[in-house]
Amino acid sequence: MSVKREAVLKDENLITNIEEIAKDTALLHGVLMRTKETPNSPEVVSYAPFTLFPTPVPTALFHQALAVQTHFNRLVDRVSQNPSFLEETLASTIKVDNFTARLFNIYKQVQQEHCPQSIVLGLNRSDYMLDHSPHGGTSLKQIEINTIAASFGGLASRTPDVHRHILKVTNLPEESKNVLDNNPAAGLARGLAKAWELYGSERAVVMFLVEDVQRNIYDHRYVENELWKRNIPVIRRQLEDVCRTGSLDESRRLFVDGREIATVYFRNGYMPQNYTSDKSWEARLMMERSLAVKCPDISTHLAGTKKVQQELARQGVLERFFPDEPETVAQIRATFAGLYTLDMVEEQHC
Amino acid sequence: MSVKREAVLKDENLITNIEEIAKDTALLHGVLMRTKETPNSPEVVSYAPFTLFPTPVPTALFHQALAVQTHFNRLVDRVSQNPSFLEETLASTIKVDNFTARLFNIYKQVQQEHCPQSIVLGLNRSDYMLDHSPHGGTSLKQIEINTIAASFGGLASRTPDVHRHILKVTNLPEESKNVLDNNPAAGLARGLAKAWELYGSERAVVMFLVEDVQRNIYDHRYVENELWKRNIPVIRRQLEDVCRTGSLDESRRLFVDGREIATVYFRNGYMPQNYTSDKSWEARLMMERSLAVKCPDISTHLAGTKKVQQELARQGVLERFFPDEPETVAQIRATFAGLYTLDMVEEQHC
Repeated sequence: MSVKREAVLKDENLITNIEEIAKDTALLHGVLMRTKETPNSPEVVSYAPFTLFPTPVPTALFHQALAVQTHFNRLVDRVSQNPSFLEETLASTIKVDNFTARLFNIYKQVQQEHCPQSIVLGLNRSDYMLDHSPHGGTSLKQIEINTIAASFGGLASRTPDVHRHILKVTNLPEESKNVLDNNPAAGLARGLAKAWELYGSERAVVMFLVEDVQRNIYDHRYVENELWKRNIPVIRRQLEDVCRTGSLDESRRLFVDGREIATVYFRNGYMPQNYTSDKSWEARLMMERSLAVKCPDISTHLAGTKKVQQELARQGVLERFFPDEPETVAQIRATFAGLYTLDMVEEQHC
Repeated sequence: MSVKREAVLKDENLITNIEEIAKDTALLHGVLMRTKETPNSPEVVSYAPFTLFPTPVPTALFHQALAVQTHFNRLVDRVSQNPSFLEETLASTIKVDNFTARLFNIYKQVQQEHCPQSIVLGLNRSDYMLDHSPHGGTSLKQIEINTIAASFGGLASRTPDVHRHILKVTNLPEESKNVLDNNPAAGLARGLAKAWELYGSERAVVMFLVEDVQRNIYDHRYVENELWKRNIPVIRRQLEDVCRTGSLDESRRLFVDGREIATVYFRNGYMPQNYTSDKSWEARLMMERSLAVKCPDISTHLAGTKKVQQELARQGVLERFFPDEPETVAQIRATFAGLYTLDMVEEQHC
């Protein structure tokens, strides 16, 4: 951290004064969240949690994270297309965890039937912390990778401007210049737009599958709005809507509320509590069996489970997915922090 | 109005569905207002009132309004620099209205003393309605001109994008293309920045003189943020702060809370209820006597009073200000709708 920023952080008076300005800046730039009290109403809203200042990241680690992401995306893709690995890895989980078992049943059924849609969209979010070694030196350690319903790409698109303004107002304009542009909303929408295009029907829509409690709706809205800018229509529906009005036609085209669905974007459906009835499981199966491009499909969902991530951290496993790429394996493994089973016995610590 | 838009407006189902999206769009684009319940807190906010669709304005009337604004600005300027006109016009008001009388006293005192600052900034907002004649044809009629604390230039900078998005989502994309860009926040800031520059001190700040009830703070914030982008520091202070901590040095430089003020931007101080004590009147006098550039100064404030606007609508009065410009006079007069005294006797109806 810069000496100047440390001085600012020690100036309690300034920090108190800046509180209202910082919150207003987040609000004005659309870093919004609905309130706990009225999560489904647009009448009053609040700011999403944000840091006062951006976190400085060493340049080398930033570039390392950028570079390794491609490897992680390829890894998720390869895992998702390896039925025997998924089956072996999840076998013990399926025995004790009814949720994973039901997901896996759908996966098996879709596999046997040959899903009519071979295109899959993966929008993965890899989370890191900076690990400061006691011997000096900082390294990048991955916490987890999210392969379904990863949040905050929308709101994160607006935080660079929030931080730039706060740094200016706190008399740190030179740090303001160091804040990088970031527009994941546009990037996520680019992927969804590509999936919509490949589906190939002008009248079909992108469906965001959303929760019934919608506190984080503004995070989604940024991605929706980017799609509308490209003249791609978006609808938001809940799993319950798919149960009630969803259907497949003879070509397994998916219709919900009478609209043909080109792309299903899961912002929901990844947690046990989303499946409150057999109807919800039927709806999930219907979507997986359909011609709609799923983001993600069920095999990518399963590839992102904790159990799979734990297995990937075991010695020799990454090599199975990248047999001729020792460099790729080394780069992925360098970010592993160690994953532990719930009974706290260390299985593997890289 | 387009045939397609009329059809949309008649589709009650669509209009109901669009309500939440429209409100979210306003919120995401920063068309914000604090709540009545917590006007001074940034914890929860709402959207400012907005129309679902932009109002279509005939091209000729739009250009007429643009063109006549320069004439109105010149008129306000000339009126503000004509002491005998102001004195004659306001004489009857001063006798019955203590507020105007006290403003006028300050005006007289500053005039006699010769204010050290000859630069004045005027940011005027002229309000119109479209008048549909029973014989067909539409004309532009001015409601009033605001020469002090005119609002909504900030929020209006964000409404074009709100309307564009709503038109897209309601399947009116071709109308979306007709929405003009508008960024009054940048325009207002350009004027304030010029005033700050002409004052000529790097360490001096722009002071927004604000109300104690700050529901409309986000409207101001856009102008503030535009100034910060230009590295011009902004502080927000209430009249009460000026009373308590304001002072003039021997060169009549204005200091508030220890900060030298280059520009006073009135967002308050134009209403009788703002002056709750002799102290407030002393603070106003101090600002007027100071070297700070006022936006507006007291003579421009007086030039914008209803009484003056009524007088300007009388036959022959505009000609006194533009003796050699019959075209200017005609263009201004064409927008007059008629002004009435409170006892409802029509004095002049153009």
